[in-house]
Amino acid sequence: MSVYSASVTAPVNIATLKYWGKRDKELNLPTNSSISVTLSQKDLRTLTTASASSTFKQDELYLNGKLESLESARTQACLGDLRKLRSELESQDDKLEKLSQFKLRIVSENNFPTAAGLASSAAGFAALVYAIAKLYELPQDMSELSKIARKGSGSACRSLFGGFVAWEMGDLENGQDSKAVEVAPVEHWPTLKAAILVVSDDKKDTPSTSGMQATVKTSDLFQHRIKEVVPQRFDEMKQSILNKDFNKFGELTMRDSNSFHAVCLDSYPPIFYLNDTSKKIIKLIHKLNETEGEIIAAYTFDAGPNAVIYYDEANEAKVLGLIHTYFNQVDGWSKADTSKLSKLEIEGTDPEIYKGVSRIILTEIGQGPQITTESLQI
Amino acid sequence: MSVYSASVTAPVNIATLKYWGKRDKELNLPTNSSISVTLSQKDLRTLTTASASSTFKQDELYLNGKLESLESARTQACLGDLRKLRSELESQDDKLEKLSQFKLRIVSENNFPTAAGLASSAAGFAALVYAIAKLYELPQDMSELSKIARKGSGSACRSLFGGFVAWEMGDLENGQDSKAVEVAPVEHWPTLKAAILVVSDDKKDTPSTSGMQATVKTSDLFQHRIKEVVPQRFDEMKQSILNKDFNKFGELTMRDSNSFHAVCLDSYPPIFYLNDTSKKIIKLIHKLNETEGEIIAAYTFDAGPNAVIYYDEANEAKVLGLIHTYFNQVDGWSKADTSKLSKLEIEGTDPEIYKGVSRIILTEIGQGPQITTESLQI
Repeated sequence: MSVYSASVTAPVNIATLKYWGKRDKELNLPTNSSISVTLSQKDLRTLTTASASSTFKQDELYLNGKLESLESARTQACLGDLRKLRSELESQDDKLEKLSQFKLRIVSENNFPTAAGLASSAAGFAALVYAIAKLYELPQDMSELSKIARKGSGSACRSLFGGFVAWEMGDLENGQDSKAVEVAPVEHWPTLKAAILVVSDDKKDTPSTSGMQATVKTSDLFQHRIKEVVPQRFDEMKQSILNKDFNKFGELTMRDSNSFHAVCLDSYPPIFYLNDTSKKIIKLIHKLNETEGEIIAAYTFDAGPNAVIYYDEANEAKVLGLIHTYFNQVDGWSKADTSKLSKLEIEGTDPEIYKGVSRIILTEIGQGPQITTESLQI
Repeated sequence: MSVYSASVTAPVNIATLKYWGKRDKELNLPTNSSISVTLSQKDLRTLTTASASSTFKQDELYLNGKLESLESARTQACLGDLRKLRSELESQDDKLEKLSQFKLRIVSENNFPTAAGLASSAAGFAALVYAIAKLYELPQDMSELSKIARKGSGSACRSLFGGFVAWEMGDLENGQDSKAVEVAPVEHWPTLKAAILVVSDDKKDTPSTSGMQATVKTSDLFQHRIKEVVPQRFDEMKQSILNKDFNKFGELTMRDSNSFHAVCLDSYPPIFYLNDTSKKIIKLIHKLNETEGEIIAAYTFDAGPNAVIYYDEANEAKVLGLIHTYFNQVDGWSKADTSKLSKLEIEGTDPEIYKGVSRIILTEIGQGPQITTESLQI
């Protein structure tokens, strides 16, 4: 039997200008443009092998070793789009194997624990779409593929690029102009680093899709955010990235995280993602920046209590030094040379703050999806 | 020696449409109108005796038995205004004692522990202004006096009335139209009750004056709140009070509390007043209302983690029943007939939620300032 296959990896991305709100739920069209930083696949990535064979009986998806449903409308939308593109190729070239008619087997694994609470759907859908695109030998570029990944999970479209990425919201009803584009590649600012503080939480967060819908529908402040605040911030943040101006980039990142959580709180009933530990981390970062007299570290929080702290390598001794001072008891320091870190204490910080954090992930800006020789078998 | 004196009591008020933002810091002129409920003086009140005598050597203020400074610009603004009004009277009537030239002794006590963390400045300044106005036999009505109390502490102006009170922001630069007015007296809706859950907190909150200034200056969402959201809500809330429509009144109250905390979070650096216990209380109330299919309880939070829960007496068995179910270990139940309360459990509620609450105060809507025969001596 012949089996055709392609294996790829795709990265996680963490937004610095947040996506929150859909104008079209089926197509995952957003109410505002967003910006993200792609994180290094050395630390966080999804590896996906997509195979097609005339002998396969049905489409199958294995996630981290477990058979998962492919039935969701979102996954079906991605598979449908990719098969359609392949079938167009096949209709133009008789010599091509009719892969579009074969069933697919998709095997996918993350190199980080799902329990970390990091949104893995972005990397997951980016890897799925890119793997099948490679299997099908599609000629479409990353922005084109990002529109397909977007239908799987909105933020997945940004994981098709490395470095700094913008998701342009677009105007069209069919979503054909709602796509990811590169703002700047890794090489533009390779010294940008990130420390992820995985915050323990006993409660179940509001899922982001239903949270967004609630905010769009009920928050009085939300319309102002998407119409006035974000469009201006989008231009300013792109400029700060092009200028490698961490001071500005960091401020805009922190402001936008707060603005996003503010419209969550303004929803009815209110949605809370930050907990008391998240708030203590926010205060710690502001105090560090005050002490330094400039912004050398910037927090951002997605739809959960985990903190992502961005900083430039030039300030690593201080930023990681502060984090190490308060969180050295927590797992995740093995890759750092902690002897080079400064011991930094901030007055008034709860010495037991580490109890709210279960793990630290030290990482940095990274590349977009890659083709790999490593493959996954079931 | 002759001593002239007057003793009054003044109530606490808790805003249902929040005052947050000053357009003039010296005159305490707000950026938006607000609405509050005056709470019963049986449970929460300030008692103030104001005396004047030619034998007094200096103005003196005793708060809860301790000599306090009268030097603050705010207190001086109140004393100056009151003395000016008295002196106008004296200039028109030679027979009047020249009290405006005598030094003042003000003795003031709260009937609730300051440690409860309830903003006592509203009741305090209302009592101070009303006591001196009575001592001086001023003819000004409560709205006129509210402008003087406002200079002491913005929200104090609302404590000059009982029942439901609006603070109309006014337009004039000199503040002469920024005053409290009655929306409806206690008798209009005498069955409105309030349970205050005093939430323990280890951190020091951002003082409201500096918090407001930060929000006005740095929040991108704030302008939308004061220009679009509050003006419409102000009219709707007044109407809901006139209609005794708890469903509407409660929803607007909760939405406005959330909107206020949202613009605090949108400030830079962000300001947090709600803690994890506050958030659990918010969820509990929303779940109660969902279970009931209508709004029978409404939370509101000022610049701190304490919850004030409004409800109508008709729903006391349920609302206090729920609170008693989860907080019966906490001090403050002695005045309630707990045998009449329903035991109400809400799935998913943290059974240790009571640990975050130090005291319950059961109270109700109440009257404005009163002249009293009880007086305080030092």
